[in-house]
Amino acid sequence: MDITKRLGGEGYTFWGGREGYFSLLNTNLKKELDNAGSFFNMAVKYKQKIGANFQMYIEPKPREPTKHQYDYDAQTVIAFLKHYNIEKHYKLNIEPNHTTLAGHEFEHDIMIASAYGMLGSIDANSGDPLCGWDTDQFNMDVKKAALIMWTVIKQGGLKPGGLNFDCKVRRESTDLQDIFISHISAMDVYAQGLIAADKIIKDGTLPKMLEERYSSYNSKIATKIDNGNSSFEELERYAIQNDEPKQKSGQQELYETIFNRFVNW
Amino acid sequence: MDITKRLGGEGYTFWGGREGYFSLLNTNLKKELDNAGSFFNMAVKYKQKIGANFQMYIEPKPREPTKHQYDYDAQTVIAFLKHYNIEKHYKLNIEPNHTTLAGHEFEHDIMIASAYGMLGSIDANSGDPLCGWDTDQFNMDVKKAALIMWTVIKQGGLKPGGLNFDCKVRRESTDLQDIFISHISAMDVYAQGLIAADKIIKDGTLPKMLEERYSSYNSKIATKIDNGNSSFEELERYAIQNDEPKQKSGQQELYETIFNRFVNW
Amino acid sequence: MDITKRLGGEGYTFWGGREGYFSLLNTNLKKELDNAGSFFNMAVKYKQKIGANFQMYIEPKPREPTKHQYDYDAQTVIAFLKHYNIEKHYKLNIEPNHTTLAGHEFEHDIMIASAYGMLGSIDANSGDPLCGWDTDQFNMDVKKAALIMWTVIKQGGLKPGGLNFDCKVRRESTDLQDIFISHISAMDVYAQGLIAADKIIKDGTLPKMLEERYSSYNSKIATKIDNGNSSFEELERYAIQNDEPKQKSGQQELYETIFNRFVNW
Amino acid sequence: MDITKRLGGEGYTFWGGREGYFSLLNTNLKKELDNAGSFFNMAVKYKQKIGANFQMYIEPKPREPTKHQYDYDAQTVIAFLKHYNIEKHYKLNIEPNHTTLAGHEFEHDIMIASAYGMLGSIDANSGDPLCGWDTDQFNMDVKKAALIMWTVIKQGGLKPGGLNFDCKVRRESTDLQDIFISHISAMDVYAQGLIAADKIIKDGTLPKMLEERYSSYNSKIATKIDNGNSSFEELERYAIQNDEPKQKSGQQELYETIFNRFVNW
Repeated sequence: MDITKRLGGEGYTFWGGREGYFSLLNTNLKKELDNAGSFFNMAVKYKQKIGANFQMYIEPKPREPTKHQYDYDAQTVIAFLKHYNIEKHYKLNIEPNHTTLAGHEFEHDIMIASAYGMLGSIDANSGDPLCGWDTDQFNMDVKKAALIMWTVIKQGGLKPGGLNFDCKVRRESTDLQDIFISHISAMDVYAQGLIAADKIIKDGTLPKMLEERYSSYNSKIATKIDNGNSSFEELERYAIQNDEPKQKSGQQELYETIFNRFVNW
Repeated sequence: MDITKRLGGEGYTFWGGREGYFSLLNTNLKKELDNAGSFFNMAVKYKQKIGANFQMYIEPKPREPTKHQYDYDAQTVIAFLKHYNIEKHYKLNIEPNHTTLAGHEFEHDIMIASAYGMLGSIDANSGDPLCGWDTDQFNMDVKKAALIMWTVIKQGGLKPGGLNFDCKVRRESTDLQDIFISHISAMDVYAQGLIAADKIIKDGTLPKMLEERYSSYNSKIATKIDNGNSSFEELERYAIQNDEPKQKSGQQELYETIFNRFVNW
Repeated sequence: MDITKRLGGEGYTFWGGREGYFSLLNTNLKKELDNAGSFFNMAVKYKQKIGANFQMYIEPKPREPTKHQYDYDAQTVIAFLKHYNIEKHYKLNIEPNHTTLAGHEFEHDIMIASAYGMLGSIDANSGDPLCGWDTDQFNMDVKKAALIMWTVIKQGGLKPGGLNFDCKVRRESTDLQDIFISHISAMDVYAQGLIAADKIIKDGTLPKMLEERYSSYNSKIATKIDNGNSSFEELERYAIQNDEPKQKSGQQELYETIFNRFVNW
Repeated sequence: MDITKRLGGEGYTFWGGREGYFSLLNTNLKKELDNAGSFFNMAVKYKQKIGANFQMYIEPKPREPTKHQYDYDAQTVIAFLKHYNIEKHYKLNIEPNHTTLAGHEFEHDIMIASAYGMLGSIDANSGDPLCGWDTDQFNMDVKKAALIMWTVIKQGGLKPGGLNFDCKVRRESTDLQDIFISHISAMDVYAQGLIAADKIIKDGTLPKMLEERYSSYNSKIATKIDNGNSSFEELERYAIQNDEPKQKSGQQELYETIFNRFVNW
């Protein structure tokens, strides 16, 4: 933290890869979590004391090397931060590869962290959903890149923070130029994703479909629900007074088809 | 809720099996989570209004029928409850089978919920870690039952709440008596687990090993850490003044061996 | 089989979804496999008896509804057919979704079946690698479609056989038009895949890289190995006489980058 | 192989951990499999040439370090051996941990290899079904040990071959005595498993239930099916002449309950 401040670093990431358990038999979960809470509280105090203003991040990962890591995924870390009253001092550094290891879609933790205003930075690598360990591959999937960049644009960018490559070439690579090729290619993939996301937004079809799908959430009754001013009694009356609502199709395949148009052509 | 009150029910469980998404492309995560928050807030208000005093539970499940359910696991639900300020009104009803589907050990969600004072009740079934869906089998594993009952004893029991069987006989069962046999057997398994847990506690070897493993957490400096009265600076001084700590082995195999003695003979 | 013959059907697929076990405790594996062998032998004889000339297929699937299905994946089925001496009477109908459930890459069973001359037909759906059950989604991934079509072109097409959609719209679909949209879209995806595969082949870069990577397999010594005319002694002499071979990089990222060019722009 | 012969070794195991692929894009599956076939054929010839009579084993493993290993599981290896006409020269060395990584039950590959007369030796370790990598833990589960030993007894033992520990203590272990404790404990677990398996066989309840479950496989018509002397036509007549068969329950829970009695008390 001292060095980050001295160097003018804008961010400081905690990755607690050994903060977890190998067996529940020899583990006191609560003591370990409380201690982790104390640790992260002391980090907040120390940052204040040295007058640093970098952003602190926690990077979730479900396991490896431990069997179970306490920073399992985005929501688990948010729960942890809230429990120990330090949520305003940290953001999340999401590695999509870790997200799939936690059983979620590649882009899930990006989106859920963003939804709660906690997406700080992105470890822009990729994994192999069939291998149960952290492969740290270069992301070569433009569709996934487009989903991530769409989320980043929607939240107004990452500032501070950004996309960094926590990647390595595959084990079969023996040429130095592979490192060159893979970095350029993965950057291209994110550039293609950014272009696709920008087109999706400017075109407006998908955003409009999404808005339309949730349009009933803007009705008078929905606003009362949002504000905490409604009740089961009122909703019961509403349901009786109004006809059975017309069911709207989820149209997943249509969304996927339109999304494909921005990525593949 | 009205009927539960009228019947003198002591618990009311919410299982949001359809509260999740099939595709992130057509989903507004934040709106859906906020609405779920409003719903559970209204449930609190409604319970108060009708003067009911049953315990309300949320039962985590990671997926199925949806691809991703918002009540993914114990910690995700705790995060949700804290975010919407309703954590004191709900406890968790843990189904171990759902825990393995979320990528955690069978007993993990039981223990983590208990650690945070949120374990309310147990759906005492079992799953198949190799099948990716909810098999709702009768638990036939005494070791797992012992771990669960040990946790229940440690937190002083489940009151209200308890162990209920959300189980069904396998698809190949065609005899009525299988239902009889399976219920009795699974009850026996939990009874054996309870006996084993009781012996483990009375014998004291494992609890003492565990206490010993964490004994440095009771030192003067550890107490200051716990109380939030320490700092990185103090810990740095402490580390310099004191020798490198003697590393204690995790002894996982010893724990497993001793645990086995209480279960298998 | 009678009806297929009467209708002039060109193919007949066996899918043994219930031919597997739920528990090894109550199962005699060998008896069940031998009986399955007898069954498929009788099917061969019956087809001959009625003078039918349709192609018979077996469709591998690892589980669901059973915990373990005997037709686990392509190689397991090939083993089975060889053991019971009926491999020349059957081909495989591969469903990529089942392949991922068996822990293999989407395109793996297509390629391995093709490598052994056993790829007969394709159930052209897709699954969700994070959901452990058969979702039968419409394939919306052009990259995967390109890999499949590339394999199909390489083996000279599927004749008889073809691509059929064993797909259904998602649970959230309530509009009839979703069925229309999803079929058209998934057909488009395979058409895009076919165009990409054709371009890959005509462009020649990737096929040439692949040929180059295995070029030492065409050397004199390699031909002797292939023909079963070499030996460890000869290879030892060869290794001593020749210098350490220059190691060729696997260049996975370069392959992925070039492949992307044919799919994404 | 020379050294094994000189030392009087009774077995020689091939584990092809790097014989697989990282990406299908840069891989010629057929060439690699054919080369592997040539290699194992040359090993047969070399063994004959040096006049050795040790048993050769192949140890299946689905992945790690590669993304996909050609020796995926027992049935895949059996298919491979049959295809290259060397099945009588090799047996399998099964590591249960690898079996779960391939998506099968711990004991599955032991049983399936035994069913086909191919079980030669056992790497008696254990894995973690929730971690997707090879943890090589000491097996502490008596139930699993009992299933394995029951299979070994049924096939008349392993000769040559045996149970060897390919295990290591957990990462948190720092005491030398952990290695001592873990080996003794895991040996005890297999000893308990052997005692349980012996009791199961001598008691006879489970074997008799299993025999009874398959008793119709001993009928006159079943014998004709077994011998390849039946036909669909005959079976059709049989089905019409005889009443709908009385369905027998799979009784999985009863099997599990009785099995538990031999393991837990």
